[in-house]
Amino acid sequence: MEYDIVIRNTEIISKNDGKEYNIGIQGKRIAAITEQPLEGKYIIDGFDKIAVPGMVNAHTHTAMTLFRSYADDMVLMDWLQNKIWPAENNLTGEDVYWGTQLAIAEMLKTGTTCFADMYFFMDETAQAVNETGFRASLSRGITGTGKEADVRIKENAELFKKWHNSADGRIKVMLGPHAIYTCPKDTLNKIIKNAQKIGSEIHVHLSETKGEVEDCLKQQGKTPVAYLNDLGMFETGTLAAHCVHVSEADMDILADKHVRVVHNPQSNLKLASGFAPIAAMKKHNILIALGADGASSNNNLDMLEEARLASLLQKNLTGDPTALPAKETLSMVTENGYKALDFADIGEIKVGNIADVVLYDMDKPQWYPRNDRYSLFIYAASGTDADTVLVNGKVLMEKGKLLTIDLAKVYAEVNKRAKRLVNNVRE
Amino acid sequence: MEYDIVIRNTEIISKNDGKEYNIGIQGKRIAAITEQPLEGKYIIDGFDKIAVPGMVNAHTHTAMTLFRSYADDMVLMDWLQNKIWPAENNLTGEDVYWGTQLAIAEMLKTGTTCFADMYFFMDETAQAVNETGFRASLSRGITGTGKEADVRIKENAELFKKWHNSADGRIKVMLGPHAIYTCPKDTLNKIIKNAQKIGSEIHVHLSETKGEVEDCLKQQGKTPVAYLNDLGMFETGTLAAHCVHVSEADMDILADKHVRVVHNPQSNLKLASGFAPIAAMKKHNILIALGADGASSNNNLDMLEEARLASLLQKNLTGDPTALPAKETLSMVTENGYKALDFADIGEIKVGNIADVVLYDMDKPQWYPRNDRYSLFIYAASGTDADTVLVNGKVLMEKGKLLTIDLAKVYAEVNKRAKRLVNNVRE
Repeated sequence: MEYDIVIRNTEIISKNDGKEYNIGIQGKRIAAITEQPLEGKYIIDGFDKIAVPGMVNAHTHTAMTLFRSYADDMVLMDWLQNKIWPAENNLTGEDVYWGTQLAIAEMLKTGTTCFADMYFFMDETAQAVNETGFRASLSRGITGTGKEADVRIKENAELFKKWHNSADGRIKVMLGPHAIYTCPKDTLNKIIKNAQKIGSEIHVHLSETKGEVEDCLKQQGKTPVAYLNDLGMFETGTLAAHCVHVSEADMDILADKHVRVVHNPQSNLKLASGFAPIAAMKKHNILIALGADGASSNNNLDMLEEARLASLLQKNLTGDPTALPAKETLSMVTENGYKALDFADIGEIKVGNIADVVLYDMDKPQWYPRNDRYSLFIYAASGTDADTVLVNGKVLMEKGKLLTIDLAKVYAEVNKRAKRLVNNVRE
Repeated sequence: MEYDIVIRNTEIISKNDGKEYNIGIQGKRIAAITEQPLEGKYIIDGFDKIAVPGMVNAHTHTAMTLFRSYADDMVLMDWLQNKIWPAENNLTGEDVYWGTQLAIAEMLKTGTTCFADMYFFMDETAQAVNETGFRASLSRGITGTGKEADVRIKENAELFKKWHNSADGRIKVMLGPHAIYTCPKDTLNKIIKNAQKIGSEIHVHLSETKGEVEDCLKQQGKTPVAYLNDLGMFETGTLAAHCVHVSEADMDILADKHVRVVHNPQSNLKLASGFAPIAAMKKHNILIALGADGASSNNNLDMLEEARLASLLQKNLTGDPTALPAKETLSMVTENGYKALDFADIGEIKVGNIADVVLYDMDKPQWYPRNDRYSLFIYAASGTDADTVLVNGKVLMEKGKLLTIDLAKVYAEVNKRAKRLVNNVRE
C-alpha cells in the first residue's frame, strides 16, 4: 500500500539499536514501523536522524514570550508589580495571538509539539494553535472575586464550549483558577461547580512557594493541597503546576486523587521557589509531567533543557546518581505529558498511535559516539537539533523550515508589540 | 587603513544597545570598534548577529568525549571501576588526539574557544589544539606514587617545556596532580617542588565530594583546602576544580592565596556531588570560572548550559532571584575563565584585546523580542546559535562550517575508536 507519508531510514529512540526504520503514516496515525521498504505519497528522508515523540510543555503561558528579556534577575513581587502586571495591563487579543505564534515557532524548532496554557485572550491562543496545526490544552487564568471573577469564569466556559476537543482533536480546554492566593474561596467554589457542570478538568498553580504554603496554613489551617482537596477541586481531574512545597500527607492526597503534577525546574530555580521533591512524588506514584512556565521567567521554551535539568536536579537532591535515568526522563517529557493533558494514543512511537513525531538531526558533534540513544538525547543533544516535526500526521516543520508559520511576519509583529507593551502604551 | 579582517554590522553584547558595529581585526588583536564603515581584506557579515567573547571551559577532560553515552545514571565507584577505568586502560595517544578533535569541534559549534584539560597523552591533545587553532591550558593528570608518579611528573614537566606559551600564545601548560585521594603526600610534595622549579602553575580537583573531605579530616586532621595549603601548593598559583564542599575557613584560604575556583554545575548535579556555594565564594572575592568537566559525565561541552545553570542554581540556593545576574554570569564564563587560565588581554570585546570572538545568529525565535542582550544570551539562547568563531584573530568557523577540522573524518575515527574502547580491546 501507499501511505500518506513515509519517513525513510530513521532511527527510533525507543528501539535504541542504531538500526534504520521506515515509518508509514496514514491519516493522523502511525500505521507501520518496519525495516522493510515502504511506499508513500510524501517521503521524508530520515537518514542520520532519530525519531522521538514530540515533547510536551505541560505548563506555560505562551504569550509571555512578548516579555522575554524584559525583566530578569528581580525579586518576585518587584517583578510582578513593577514590570509584568503593568505591561500585561495593556495586552490585546492580537498581542496574545502573535506572542503565541512566536512560542509555537520556538517549540517546533526545539521538538515540542504540545502545551498546556493558562493566560487570557485564550480565544486568540486557540486560533493560533488551530492555524499552526499545533496541539494544546488551554485555560483562561481566573483571578479575583465577584463580578470580575464571574466574567472570567464565563469566558473560560465559553472557551470550553467553542474549542474543547476541536481542531481534529488537537485542542482541549480546562478551567484555569490561577492559584489559591489570587482566587478567594468563593471564586474557587464557583469554578469547581462550573467544572462539574460542564465536565471540564482544572489547571491550577499549586504550592509553588514557601510563602503560599505558610499563608494558607495561617489562613485556612491546612496546606494548599489539603485546602483544594477539601473544596472538592481534585474530583473533577486536576493539572497542578509546580508542587514545590508538598508534605508527605500532601503527596498522599495528590496520588489518591490522581492529580497530575507539572514540574517546572528552570522556572523554580530562576524565581528561587525551591527544589521540587520529584523523586519522592514518583515514589508515591504521582504522574509527573514537565513544563517551561512562561518565557518571561525561564527564558525559553526548550523542553529538552527542562528534561535534562529535571533529571540532574533529582540526582543531586537525592544524592543518588541513578535517580531519574534518561529513559524515565524521556517518558516524563513525552508520555506523561500527554497523559497529564488527557490526550490518548500518543507519546510513544508505535503502530496505532497518533503521529506527533520529531526527527532530530544526529549529524552533530554532541551525538558522537553513539552508545546509548536515551543518554545522547537527554544529556547531550540540543533541542535545536530538531529538524522535522509532524503533529497529528501533518508536517509542520521540514529540514528546519516552518511550514505553517510566517516567521518574518511573527518577528515583526512581536517586535512592534513588545516595544509598545514595555513602554506601557495602550494600543 | 585596510584591516586583516572586518566584521560588519554586528551587535556587541557588552554594548547591549541594539546598534550595529564594525570590528576591525589586525593580526591577532581587535584594532577598531566603530559605527563607521571599515575596510578589510576579509569581510565577515555580522548582520542580525551578536558578538560575544569566546567562552572558556576551565575544567574538562576533552578526550572523554570518546566515552559519551557509554555509562550514565550510575553510582560513582561503579562507573569508574567497571566502566571508565577499564576503557581508559586501552586508550592510545591517537585515541586522545581524535577525542580532542571531537571536543574542539563541539566547543567551536557552541561558542567556546578555550579549555583547561587534565588527562593523559597530553602531547596529542596539544597537537590537536595547535592544528585546529584553538586555545588551551593543558596538564597531565598525575596519580599514584613512587616510580609510577615520577614518570607522570616527568611527562608533565616535558609537556611544559615543549608547549608552554607555544602556538603563538594559544597553549599554556600546568602541572596536574589529579586529587588528594589519588596522590599521596609524597607525590603532592614532588609536584609542588617541580612546579616551583620550572615555574608552572597547578591544576587540581579539590573538595569535589563530601567523602573526599571526610576522609581528609580523618587522615590529615584538616580539610583538603587546608591540607594543600599547608603543603604549599597554592604558592605557585592554582586552578582548583569543583570546590563543592568548602567551609568558611576554606574560603578564606582560597581567597587569600588567589586560588581560582572552577565551578562545574552540570557535572556536580549528574554525579550527585552537591551544590557548590558559589555566591558565598564570590562574597569572599574568590575568582570563579566555569567548566563542563568530561563529556562522559555531563554529557556535552556546551558552556552556555553551564553558565545558565550556574546562575539559576545560585538564585535558588540563596533564595535570592537577584543572585548571579546575567551580566555577571557572562563574565564568569568569559573574562574570569581567561584570568583563571592566565591568558592576558582577552575575554572582553574591546580595542587592544586578542580577537577570540563568537558571532551568534539571532535570527531564531528564542532571540525575540530583544529587550536585554545579556538576558537573551544567558537565559534564552542556545549554544548552537554560534555561527562564526575567531580565535587569535583567525577564523575557525564561518556560517557553521568548521575551517580547520575535517568533521567527517573525526566522526569516523571516533566511532571506530569508541567501539574498540567500550569493548575493552587494545589496539
